[in-house]
Amino acid sequence: MSSLFLRTLRDDPADAEVPSHRLLARGGYIRRAAPGGFTWLPLGWRVFRNVERVVREEMDAMGAQEVHFPALLPREPYEATGRWTEYGDNLFRLKDRRGNDFLLGPTHEEMFTLLVKDLYGSYKDLPVVLYQIQTKYRDEARPRAGLFRGREFTMKDSYSFDVTDAGLDASYAAHRAAYIKVFDRLGLDYVIVSAMSGAMGGSKSEEFLHPTSIGEDTFVRSPGGYAANVEAVRTVVPESIPLDGLPEAHVEDTPDTPTIETLVAVANELFPDAGYTAAATLKNVVVTLVHPDGTREPLVIGLPGDREVDTKRLEAQVSPAEVEPFTDFAAHPDLVKGYIGPQVLGADGKSGIRFLVDPRVVPGSRWITGANEAGRHVFDLVAGRDFSWDGVIEAAEVLPGDPAPDGSGPLELARGVEMGHIFQLGRKYAEALDLKVLDENGKLVTVTMGSYGIGVSRAVAAIAESMHDELGLVWPREVAPADVHLVATGKDAAVFEFAETLAGELVGAGLTVLYDDRPKVSPGVKFKDAELLGMPTIVTVGRGLAEGVVEVRDRATGERTEVPVGEAAAAVLAAVRG
Amino acid sequence: MSSLFLRTLRDDPADAEVPSHRLLARGGYIRRAAPGGFTWLPLGWRVFRNVERVVREEMDAMGAQEVHFPALLPREPYEATGRWTEYGDNLFRLKDRRGNDFLLGPTHEEMFTLLVKDLYGSYKDLPVVLYQIQTKYRDEARPRAGLFRGREFTMKDSYSFDVTDAGLDASYAAHRAAYIKVFDRLGLDYVIVSAMSGAMGGSKSEEFLHPTSIGEDTFVRSPGGYAANVEAVRTVVPESIPLDGLPEAHVEDTPDTPTIETLVAVANELFPDAGYTAAATLKNVVVTLVHPDGTREPLVIGLPGDREVDTKRLEAQVSPAEVEPFTDFAAHPDLVKGYIGPQVLGADGKSGIRFLVDPRVVPGSRWITGANEAGRHVFDLVAGRDFSWDGVIEAAEVLPGDPAPDGSGPLELARGVEMGHIFQLGRKYAEALDLKVLDENGKLVTVTMGSYGIGVSRAVAAIAESMHDELGLVWPREVAPADVHLVATGKDAAVFEFAETLAGELVGAGLTVLYDDRPKVSPGVKFKDAELLGMPTIVTVGRGLAEGVVEVRDRATGERTEVPVGEAAAAVLAAVRG
Repeated sequence: MSSLFLRTLRDDPADAEVPSHRLLARGGYIRRAAPGGFTWLPLGWRVFRNVERVVREEMDAMGAQEVHFPALLPREPYEATGRWTEYGDNLFRLKDRRGNDFLLGPTHEEMFTLLVKDLYGSYKDLPVVLYQIQTKYRDEARPRAGLFRGREFTMKDSYSFDVTDAGLDASYAAHRAAYIKVFDRLGLDYVIVSAMSGAMGGSKSEEFLHPTSIGEDTFVRSPGGYAANVEAVRTVVPESIPLDGLPEAHVEDTPDTPTIETLVAVANELFPDAGYTAAATLKNVVVTLVHPDGTREPLVIGLPGDREVDTKRLEAQVSPAEVEPFTDFAAHPDLVKGYIGPQVLGADGKSGIRFLVDPRVVPGSRWITGANEAGRHVFDLVAGRDFSWDGVIEAAEVLPGDPAPDGSGPLELARGVEMGHIFQLGRKYAEALDLKVLDENGKLVTVTMGSYGIGVSRAVAAIAESMHDELGLVWPREVAPADVHLVATGKDAAVFEFAETLAGELVGAGLTVLYDDRPKVSPGVKFKDAELLGMPTIVTVGRGLAEGVVEVRDRATGERTEVPVGEAAAAVLAAVRG
Repeated sequence: MSSLFLRTLRDDPADAEVPSHRLLARGGYIRRAAPGGFTWLPLGWRVFRNVERVVREEMDAMGAQEVHFPALLPREPYEATGRWTEYGDNLFRLKDRRGNDFLLGPTHEEMFTLLVKDLYGSYKDLPVVLYQIQTKYRDEARPRAGLFRGREFTMKDSYSFDVTDAGLDASYAAHRAAYIKVFDRLGLDYVIVSAMSGAMGGSKSEEFLHPTSIGEDTFVRSPGGYAANVEAVRTVVPESIPLDGLPEAHVEDTPDTPTIETLVAVANELFPDAGYTAAATLKNVVVTLVHPDGTREPLVIGLPGDREVDTKRLEAQVSPAEVEPFTDFAAHPDLVKGYIGPQVLGADGKSGIRFLVDPRVVPGSRWITGANEAGRHVFDLVAGRDFSWDGVIEAAEVLPGDPAPDGSGPLELARGVEMGHIFQLGRKYAEALDLKVLDENGKLVTVTMGSYGIGVSRAVAAIAESMHDELGLVWPREVAPADVHLVATGKDAAVFEFAETLAGELVGAGLTVLYDDRPKVSPGVKFKDAELLGMPTIVTVGRGLAEGVVEVRDRATGERTEVPVGEAAAAVLAAVRG
């Protein structure tokens, strides 16, 4: 440690919002180099490389083959798949000296697809799984939480190529199993949740979420084992109700009821026995969709009044279109602000504005909703009798206690951070880039693909985030920068002599040792640094040496053992090797 | 090989100019992904990682500490050192979504300097040597020769930080020794040449050049061991001549002598006994310097008429200014095209145009040169008597047979490619970025730095370029993608069974084996692939198996041995481990 490039900090850096960032910065593992860009210092780089090694070993073990692409990529392939545009501001774009367009790769679907197309031409060549561990770039609007959301980060991304859907299922299952091994080895808590695909298009998709209160993703889980990210939750659809015999719709004066709350109050005044709640009202929310080609379209979403639109769920549904607030009531006189009703909406309505409803709006369901006149609402408006819609959309928020779609009980909501993502792309990219192979009958067939990612730098943050205490980091053995932190204290030359010998023995036995040989640093500072840096085993050679003992301490449990000097090396080896 | 992601090509790819590129592409080691950007396929990535491992091991062994910076860097530090501008078109620049300027790092002097400034503050912290193995970007005007000159490539760059010049010398020497070990282990032929610093500023500098006819750098060497790149060659300066008693200058009519050749002919007609050669004439070459701030300045270089200006030597001298052809004679009537003479040049001349001379233009030397009138030249114009100059410049070409500056004999010229560069930066960056530490007396002193680079991806190309034959690649053991290429031929199930067992034994003994298990590929194609791919040891299990033998072949020497099956594993192990 007298020569290690390290400076531990007593205070938290001002820009560190989350514990992992604070501790990694204080422990001299990382330093901020740019907005959303971090430098790995020697200890941090060791952790990074350990995580990388675990990922590589498990990818190799599943038969995936490692390649390595440039990060600076030409525009054309991304143009072919539409992602040059779809990525919007998140893509770093640049020009070379000749004015040609380039991008910094956010993921490499296009490039892998073209590579396989370049090399392979027959069903006999498949399946193949390729991967790389590589630097990725995304121009995040708000880089945050240290390594969790940077603009330059490292990912393992892999891609599977199969002829058949069953083949894709197998490649997907192999990745799922490999990811479980990776995260188990890293000691990271995780939940595998069903996921929407977002901008990627495609079908089956799961995320490995690390549950943490600082996570940006909300997910749900049920007592029976259902888990999904909030974008993927499917609403349990109530049964339709026969239309026969339902009461007629009737319009009522409901002055000053622009909100659901005021409306429910007035409704219960008008009909004291009805016991109306917000769930009895139909709220019609207008948004503007901005399509990738720049065209703008108003969209109305009808959902029960006890729920808000969940922006993430909505965005996942309408992607690649983006959602903006709707403000242009002047241009749409059919939309009476605060009193919009479905009668004028949809392909059949006079406004012609697209109208999508929540799955709970089933035929026969009765609603209190706007009468398209200021100060008036309509009651007992029956879905499928009095109004129609253009489609169903999963855009309403999920509330705790909602039933799991598989009947496994009420949902609870939690937050997590995405550590891995496995995803059946299907044939979207292969079609866009014309990746076909000859099948057994000599016929050209389009290849089906999977895309799979693990955040390598993010995993370091997640481990730090989940494994620390008030004193500092607590690295699991698999990723710790060193097996042993050996602290020599005091001024006695014999202490340093013995410590150096012990360090030599441990290194000779194959361990990595961080040896605190600093001559003029107080024991208190050395112990504090040892706690902060977080090696799994801390060995102290100090005053005890005179009585023939050294101390071996387990960083995670805090357990201390005094060991006779003659058995010190053996005891440390036993502690490290379990 | 039946599942390896590999396709060998029979024909050279159209865009491959040099043998290494041709063979690496044909052997399925790399694929072009973008102009100047390459994808490493599985076998190529193994070679890359082996080279990287060797570099890392030797850097660690010399006590350097590994860190890792982002490639996407903010403008400000590069602005502070002037390199944001000086790099010109070679720098990839881009803006983030907020319009902030970024660059893709070509080297990281600034960032390392700032990092040390961030962590360290005392002479006690130094020396320290930091390194990274990282992706670099340069927007080359003409990416060429495959991996030799790409726009995205991998470098090991390291930086030393010392308080004293003696400390810098020691850090420099340690790097030099480590580089020798690296290139020796990689099996790469190299010459260590004195080098100019180019755009980097600073003092002592050497390059590790790999001699090859496709190299872009010209270097010189002498029988006595002097070696330098052509930019660094110092001219042997003749002794000055006393001015007393030299003949008077005289102007002669020399019609139609715009070139040195025509001038020498006319001079010898005028003075048949003089025996004039081109070396007796003084050629005054005008160029335009474009300074980093955009200002343009004419510059005249006076040099003996038997030599051309060497553009690279000139550029190295005037950097960071750039050189452009001079065309604007109209604006400078003192410059008579084809008949420029030094009498009007320099601070003392009426033109005021800056005038630098070759070191051979010593006081007392006599010259035939332009008389500043069309069709007339002046003879016996004596340097230091009849004209003066503003300085000396090493811009003349070096010719074979020129004397080495250290007296070690006549120079020969050769071509090479730069594999490594070690360089004493001195205090330039530390001053620009204010990196100071407290010395023993509590006084702030500016740190002195060294900068050191090895081209990791380029080393792969150089190994391939120097180690191949007409059949394919011939990898040295240290970097080969596998120790053994095991070829099973024919259709006999016993052959494949035995080969598989042998492969298992070899892998069990710690070797890596590329096993050609392809069932329907002819022996001829398999042998051709084995030669092309170039593993150091090729083992063939085929018809010989019936007689109880397998063949072990050394790819480099071509030596074949038949080995009894029972001794096959032992024989291969012996071949691999020497």
